[in-house]
Amino acid sequence: MSLVPVLADDEMSAEAREVIDDIRATRQTDFINNFWRVLANDPAALKRTWESLREVMGPGMIDPLTKEMIYVAVSIANGCEYCIRSHTAAARKRGMSEAQLMELQSVVAMASETNRMAVGLQVPVDDVFKVASPAAASSDD
Amino acid sequence: MSLVPVLADDEMSAEAREVIDDIRATRQTDFINNFWRVLANDPAALKRTWESLREVMGPGMIDPLTKEMIYVAVSIANGCEYCIRSHTAAARKRGMSEAQLMELQSVVAMASETNRMAVGLQVPVDDVFKVASPAAASSDD
Amino acid sequence: MSLVPVLADDEMSAEAREVIDDIRATRQTDFINNFWRVLANDPAALKRTWESLREVMGPGMIDPLTKEMIYVAVSIANGCEYCIRSHTAAARKRGMSEAQLMELQSVVAMASETNRMAVGLQVPVDDVFKVASPAAASSDD
Amino acid sequence: MSLVPVLADDEMSAEAREVIDDIRATRQTDFINNFWRVLANDPAALKRTWESLREVMGPGMIDPLTKEMIYVAVSIANGCEYCIRSHTAAARKRGMSEAQLMELQSVVAMASETNRMAVGLQVPVDDVFKVASPAAASSDD
Amino acid sequence: MSLVPVLADDEMSAEAREVIDDIRATRQTDFINNFWRVLANDPAALKRTWESLREVMGPGMIDPLTKEMIYVAVSIANGCEYCIRSHTAAARKRGMSEAQLMELQSVVAMASETNRMAVGLQVPVDDVFKVASPAAASSDD
Amino acid sequence: MSLVPVLADDEMSAEAREVIDDIRATRQTDFINNFWRVLANDPAALKRTWESLREVMGPGMIDPLTKEMIYVAVSIANGCEYCIRSHTAAARKRGMSEAQLMELQSVVAMASETNRMAVGLQVPVDDVFKVASPAAASSDD
Repeated sequence: MSLVPVLADDEMSAEAREVIDDIRATRQTDFINNFWRVLANDPAALKRTWESLREVMGPGMIDPLTKEMIYVAVSIANGCEYCIRSHTAAARKRGMSEAQLMELQSVVAMASETNRMAVGLQVPVDDVFKVASPAAASSDD
Repeated sequence: MSLVPVLADDEMSAEAREVIDDIRATRQTDFINNFWRVLANDPAALKRTWESLREVMGPGMIDPLTKEMIYVAVSIANGCEYCIRSHTAAARKRGMSEAQLMELQSVVAMASETNRMAVGLQVPVDDVFKVASPAAASSDD
Repeated sequence: MSLVPVLADDEMSAEAREVIDDIRATRQTDFINNFWRVLANDPAALKRTWESLREVMGPGMIDPLTKEMIYVAVSIANGCEYCIRSHTAAARKRGMSEAQLMELQSVVAMASETNRMAVGLQVPVDDVFKVASPAAASSDD
Repeated sequence: MSLVPVLADDEMSAEAREVIDDIRATRQTDFINNFWRVLANDPAALKRTWESLREVMGPGMIDPLTKEMIYVAVSIANGCEYCIRSHTAAARKRGMSEAQLMELQSVVAMASETNRMAVGLQVPVDDVFKVASPAAASSDD
Repeated sequence: MSLVPVLADDEMSAEAREVIDDIRATRQTDFINNFWRVLANDPAALKRTWESLREVMGPGMIDPLTKEMIYVAVSIANGCEYCIRSHTAAARKRGMSEAQLMELQSVVAMASETNRMAVGLQVPVDDVFKVASPAAASSDD
Repeated sequence: MSLVPVLADDEMSAEAREVIDDIRATRQTDFINNFWRVLANDPAALKRTWESLREVMGPGMIDPLTKEMIYVAVSIANGCEYCIRSHTAAARKRGMSEAQLMELQSVVAMASETNRMAVGLQVPVDDVFKVASPAAASSDD
């Protein structure tokens, strides 16, 4: 049970419906997941969030599947079940194989492990990593 | 200043040196960043961590650059400066452009924003996202 | 199911009951939520936590509703469902409207987004923000 | 040192300058903090982020000072030094007293303490907190 | 429902079964919890994770019960319900009393509270804490 | 530089000095670290925090050194440098060896790795872990 109502189409304001219709048109599907139906309680937030998401996840310098995998990785680190499930579904739709899903999990877990070691031991940043430019530094942790 | 000494090559145990030499051989560079020089205080941890990292970040179903970008994304979510800087350097070495770096930042930020909304509003998971298989669900949040 | 029993009044020690009775008197209600019934398994922790909470959330320089909204915001960032739900209920009791609840969600989400960008890009702190006094610095991020 | 250049006005693209000028006009100050100068490396992200922030932090149902205190609270929970410092400065500008700053810290710390207890003991959510409406539930944790 | 199948023994690959059998032999029990049955979808990850866990949680300089309590503490801080429950069970098996469980919760909660204060107030690290050696500094926060 | 002044003894209120003197008496040392000197800006918060810390970290069912190691573990997971450094110093004072410090780091890192896997794969909690009593369940993740 969410903190506010999960709105059905006919319970939304005209302003919200307009955004929902754009989501349907953009994704070419009638299905609207709960995230948007909950945000519909605040049309302005719904519009702002959808437009930002469409822009960020749309065509760019990183391919769509990679963006979805990054989205899942961040959602795991942030501990958001809803986001992990919805974006894993989105990544699978964009072609992520089950083997890639498992490998993604290992990269996220490995990063979390070494993150804790670097923070826990307060490892000082190497000078070569302190440049604000495409450093040719060698690294992996 | 780290919590334990950042060991120079000649301050390491033979067991640690062996791992460091393998890192040099694998990465084909003499440069060894502080993370490994600090871990060298515990040869067993150094060996275990390096072997796991080499396996996880090595050849697999996800390309090396994508893995590095996922690593950076998780490091940002975990707030590890050392890891953000060292893996951004690694991603740049593997070809990440400055435009891709900025786009990666937007995806991570966008994911963190919607993660908070999904958690903050306690959005219920759609049934279509609850399957343990390549669901053909439509989603983006 | 919690990790330890959710104690009914007659299952608590006299020491725990005393604290529970104080909670009832302070809140002028008979209802005691599970958080306290679980903490009752450790009377000392129950007493210490309740007394600190009563002091921190009681009359001060920040009004009660604002404190509850801050409590909800932190609970969202920490990903604690129990706390999000219980403090949203408390905030609503103190007068938070549904429109304010949605706006609160947007502020928390926006802060999380810009937090990731500042950390992800390792933005250096402006000198004007480094003073330990009421700086008249202009800012929003 | 940030991961990308902190751009001076004359190093920005015309598109970025336009956003920066809007920030100056909106805040009625010439000062532009590093966050925006770093984001200026990606004009589209700069524009999207500023427009969202201006909308979210602008006039609404929650007063400006409360929004800034919530922003600081989230930044503390997310561990973002830059954001803690910049938004504390913004809150002070909007009238936050030093006593309120200290009280804010106590609320954030108290919330983090009880968050850990609720999660650590896996306290089950009370039925009264599971409603998607202005519940008249009594609570404080 | 997990994101991938929770495999029964006869659904696992021979490679995965070998690891599962080692877990059974090491723990001297037939019971295999879901964590391993899910990881079994990626035999290499299952093997790597189990071998690392066995090494880290095995005989060392810190006694087994203390290690499990540290494991629970980290799981609480990371908000992982599965890990909190499974490692609390493991700690109880190694002798943790209910009183110790409650005290562990208080230490974790107390640490989270002071952590937020130190970060929230940006307390500067005392010089005496900046040494990479067994400093004889006095401290508690 | 902290957000508020790091107060010298003669800059504190009488109420704050009283707490500081108690810290000196309890720890049998004249040294007062910055955390307390910063909190001294809010005597009530200083008193409440010190009294809670003294109670939680004092004699109980878990030995002092183990408590300090748990404190360090949580501080690493929360990413609080100040707390990692101050409590590592405290743990060393209570007898933690350098080998134990390194092993502690491995346990924290290992826990963070498996935490991410359990959350990332949404592993369902085994029924045997759902009991609110000393379950005799077999586990390690």
